[in-house]
Amino acid sequence: MHRWSQLFIPTLREAPADAEVASHKLLLRAGYVRQLGAGIYSYLFLGNRSVNKIVAIVRQEMDRIGQEFLLPALNPREIWEASGRWDVMGDNMFRLKDRKGAELCLAMTHEEIVTDIARKELRSYKQLPQIWYQIQTKFRDEPRPKSGLLRVRQFIMKDAYSFDIDEAGLDVSYNKHDAAYRKIFTRCGLKFVSVDADSGAMGGSASQEFMVYTEAGEDLIASSASGYAANLEKAISRPSVVEDLAPTGDGTPELVHTPGFRTIDEVSAFLQTQPQHQIKTMAFTAIMGADSKVGAERPVVVFLRGDHTVNEAKLLAVSGAAELRPMTPEEIETTFKAPAGYLGPIGVEAAPHPKKPGTLVILDAALADRKNLIAGANKAEYHLRNVTPGRDFKPTVTIDVRNVLEGEGCPIDGSPLRLGKAVEIGHIFKLGFRYTKSMGASVLNRDGKETTPIMGSYGIGIERILTAAIETSAAEMGGDAYALPAAIAPFEVVVTITNVGDAALLAAGEKVAAELDAAGFDVLLDDRDERAGVKFKDADLVGIPYRINIGRGVAEGKVEFVNRLTAANKDIALDQTVATIREALTA
Amino acid sequence: MHRWSQLFIPTLREAPADAEVASHKLLLRAGYVRQLGAGIYSYLFLGNRSVNKIVAIVRQEMDRIGQEFLLPALNPREIWEASGRWDVMGDNMFRLKDRKGAELCLAMTHEEIVTDIARKELRSYKQLPQIWYQIQTKFRDEPRPKSGLLRVRQFIMKDAYSFDIDEAGLDVSYNKHDAAYRKIFTRCGLKFVSVDADSGAMGGSASQEFMVYTEAGEDLIASSASGYAANLEKAISRPSVVEDLAPTGDGTPELVHTPGFRTIDEVSAFLQTQPQHQIKTMAFTAIMGADSKVGAERPVVVFLRGDHTVNEAKLLAVSGAAELRPMTPEEIETTFKAPAGYLGPIGVEAAPHPKKPGTLVILDAALADRKNLIAGANKAEYHLRNVTPGRDFKPTVTIDVRNVLEGEGCPIDGSPLRLGKAVEIGHIFKLGFRYTKSMGASVLNRDGKETTPIMGSYGIGIERILTAAIETSAAEMGGDAYALPAAIAPFEVVVTITNVGDAALLAAGEKVAAELDAAGFDVLLDDRDERAGVKFKDADLVGIPYRINIGRGVAEGKVEFVNRLTAANKDIALDQTVATIREALTA
Repeated sequence: MHRWSQLFIPTLREAPADAEVASHKLLLRAGYVRQLGAGIYSYLFLGNRSVNKIVAIVRQEMDRIGQEFLLPALNPREIWEASGRWDVMGDNMFRLKDRKGAELCLAMTHEEIVTDIARKELRSYKQLPQIWYQIQTKFRDEPRPKSGLLRVRQFIMKDAYSFDIDEAGLDVSYNKHDAAYRKIFTRCGLKFVSVDADSGAMGGSASQEFMVYTEAGEDLIASSASGYAANLEKAISRPSVVEDLAPTGDGTPELVHTPGFRTIDEVSAFLQTQPQHQIKTMAFTAIMGADSKVGAERPVVVFLRGDHTVNEAKLLAVSGAAELRPMTPEEIETTFKAPAGYLGPIGVEAAPHPKKPGTLVILDAALADRKNLIAGANKAEYHLRNVTPGRDFKPTVTIDVRNVLEGEGCPIDGSPLRLGKAVEIGHIFKLGFRYTKSMGASVLNRDGKETTPIMGSYGIGIERILTAAIETSAAEMGGDAYALPAAIAPFEVVVTITNVGDAALLAAGEKVAAELDAAGFDVLLDDRDERAGVKFKDADLVGIPYRINIGRGVAEGKVEFVNRLTAANKDIALDQTVATIREALTA
Repeated sequence: MHRWSQLFIPTLREAPADAEVASHKLLLRAGYVRQLGAGIYSYLFLGNRSVNKIVAIVRQEMDRIGQEFLLPALNPREIWEASGRWDVMGDNMFRLKDRKGAELCLAMTHEEIVTDIARKELRSYKQLPQIWYQIQTKFRDEPRPKSGLLRVRQFIMKDAYSFDIDEAGLDVSYNKHDAAYRKIFTRCGLKFVSVDADSGAMGGSASQEFMVYTEAGEDLIASSASGYAANLEKAISRPSVVEDLAPTGDGTPELVHTPGFRTIDEVSAFLQTQPQHQIKTMAFTAIMGADSKVGAERPVVVFLRGDHTVNEAKLLAVSGAAELRPMTPEEIETTFKAPAGYLGPIGVEAAPHPKKPGTLVILDAALADRKNLIAGANKAEYHLRNVTPGRDFKPTVTIDVRNVLEGEGCPIDGSPLRLGKAVEIGHIFKLGFRYTKSMGASVLNRDGKETTPIMGSYGIGIERILTAAIETSAAEMGGDAYALPAAIAPFEVVVTITNVGDAALLAAGEKVAAELDAAGFDVLLDDRDERAGVKFKDADLVGIPYRINIGRGVAEGKVEFVNRLTAANKDIALDQTVATIREALTA
């Protein structure tokens, strides 16, 4: 049992002005951390205590699947040269020289070190599989450290590496990590989604990120109840169903005068239709890579449903461009002989194949089966009705290049997509032979032949778990309050003696805390000589999920139980505190 | 329960040629560690496991007296400028620049960081005392990294810092650490001595080092069963009692011809006396500090008992010199008009006071009450008999300046001194106001006055505990073998199935291991398909203290219990393994 009066818990009424996201503010206000420099934090008693609890959970689950190592933060340059990453890491890696002038770096990750051990120590397939993990401090020279513990220059990572004799083995190691990570995050009380972080081009899930939705995050993801989840850059969806317009006239493209109406909304209003009945036209200049067969630059035109937006990551991938630049009105006029605002599909000559020169015309897949659409007429102040893709124009390629929308159906079962910012808490990745090949690791296989082991790499950001939990809770509780899941809170329960000057209350508080302690709960007794209001505020601020208030009810054998996770308060009998906390913890 | 067949334990038949000390060789051979660079090691499964066990013990004992923090390794230059140590640390501190050119260092210790927190957060004596500790990676650019984990450039330290309102408070914090350290080292199974690391001039024990005797150590210490222990530089003793020679002639100094006999041994043999009946003369030139009142240099002559040697650290302290240089024979002749080899006390004019100019003549305290000694006569080929200090010559000062000798009586109760090399495993230190003053920490005392808190600083080298335990055990077991104390061994007990091809042995081994595991012991089952000899060797090599051999005796319900700590092997009944291990662990 810990006594608040003996502890160093420097709570603050207000967060420093430069603290932006909720977890940053709250970690400072609750006395969990203090900043030492840009992206560098000291973890005080409460912060370290939460970190230790997270580490213990991670270690317990990882011990079930692998062996714990501890690898050095200080790495000689040579080992990073061997993999070719000394240069790749650029300014993100801290570098230094020792007293003899030898070059060192502070490791951001440990693929090189484990591969070095593997190439020196592993000789036979009989020694495989291996899963090696560590819980260790990483260093990264973030260009813009911010957001408290979310983007720092020194942090704790659980990193793990697997070595297998073949891809089937790697699948097993990868799946073990997938399962362990789900257990870890669940035990830590997080609601998470696992996101396919790969293009899928390698066939199957070669990389997954574990994400927690929060406005403090820097990634955008889409997910649904079906289990589908993806970064917005890769997310796909079933577009909402639209009833096509009836044809007008003879059903072929028909000019309609739209004087001064250029945007989707202007045209919709003028023609009394909906944006989803229009074709939106986007024109880009693609700057191609050095080895391009279609010239240094090429025009790219994208046709989308009027209410859709183009996803630049998808467009980059489809176009094979190094960079995409929206065309200026002048460029549009020069290239297509059509005025900006009235550019449309009919008359734009499409390259016959993405790898042939000419304009790359992309039709977004959501328009593939549509008809009688409204589009620019490539003539000032005119649009066309009755435009039907396929019949009236042929794109170079029809493919998904749009951003999914909140509420659209997920590709698995059509259940509605949730879109939002998220923070990454873990990552599992089938590395393949990248390091074992470049660094020359090799074992004899069953047939006595030299074989390169295949690797996986897996990471969990320890502090990310804490910050994600705080952000999630703060978002639910209104931003200025939060409660941590009991498993990772610095204490499970706080016993607040509302007035230590009252001998009966003091005695009851001591007794309750001692009973909870004896029952194995992690209990903090607030025995400070402070006003009850101050103590309640502090208890809320430090995020402990359960509180027992020892107040005047003691005279009638009652104390108050406050469950901050469910916001349910109730009076309970003095001798029911252990049972109440046990029930809350197993709920 | 862990299965050896599933683990990565790369044992080696031989240690690399550059491994010198036993712990270095054995840590490599046992697959505990692998070297990545000079003074930089990777801890593999077994090494990390031992480290984790040590950390758990340290954390448990420290949690009883203080609060755990976690402070950053990456420190901005400014904070080290604030204390003045940015320059003091010199080449021992790793320094680097970030992407913006800001200067950082890798912390060797954290006085600056905790004092920074204290000065910002502590306002009142009511918040004191505070004891803050952490278990964290430290970096030190050792000029000559060597000896495996004994002198490395990256290591784990438990460092702690106390803040108190006054010296009485500091005494309490210091004593808490003293007691906790003793518990920690005892629980880790180490035989240690605590050494007064201070001159004692401050009155009382302001600094203690906890040391373990080992030839691999770099300090020299003396200790006795009374609890007395000191660095050789500071150790004192009761000299062995010598019966003085009877006077010759009229008992006054009498010339004796000693042609060609210069050394103590030559003169002893020639005069048929013992070295302890002689006065040994040592002459030095003291190079004094810049503010010296006795000139830039001064002669220093030391008179010691013939069988004693001068302790340079003590002599430096007594002489107040910056440096001491033995005089050449020419200098002796010029300074004292006496030939080297025949220099003696009578006729050497002593400065009247250490702070007055002239020759500083020091009589070692062991000669204070002696009489009828033999000494050089300041005349070629002559010595004097019947020399009695005090009567025949007056030194400037009589004081202890000699090295203690093995077996001499300790100053406390005369019990015999043990002398030897030792390694430091911990250090507790009353820092005083050094950092709180220079960095401006201050709290209001009981009377509302600004007061500077007083600090203590305390450290334990985590890996040092492991290496000291291995060195100690290897020294006892012959250098090539060792067994770790059960509390810090990677496993408490290994169950060795001598032949996994024998179904009965395999089943018995599985059963025994499962029973031990269920009883709460940390057990390793050697289920590898290897010859028994290989398995025994490996088991010995990894230092597990207890082993159960599952061999042919199983047919008669017997297994062999091997206690490597006591070298006692015995057959026990199959169902007695749990009881046997329990007994061994509590012995």
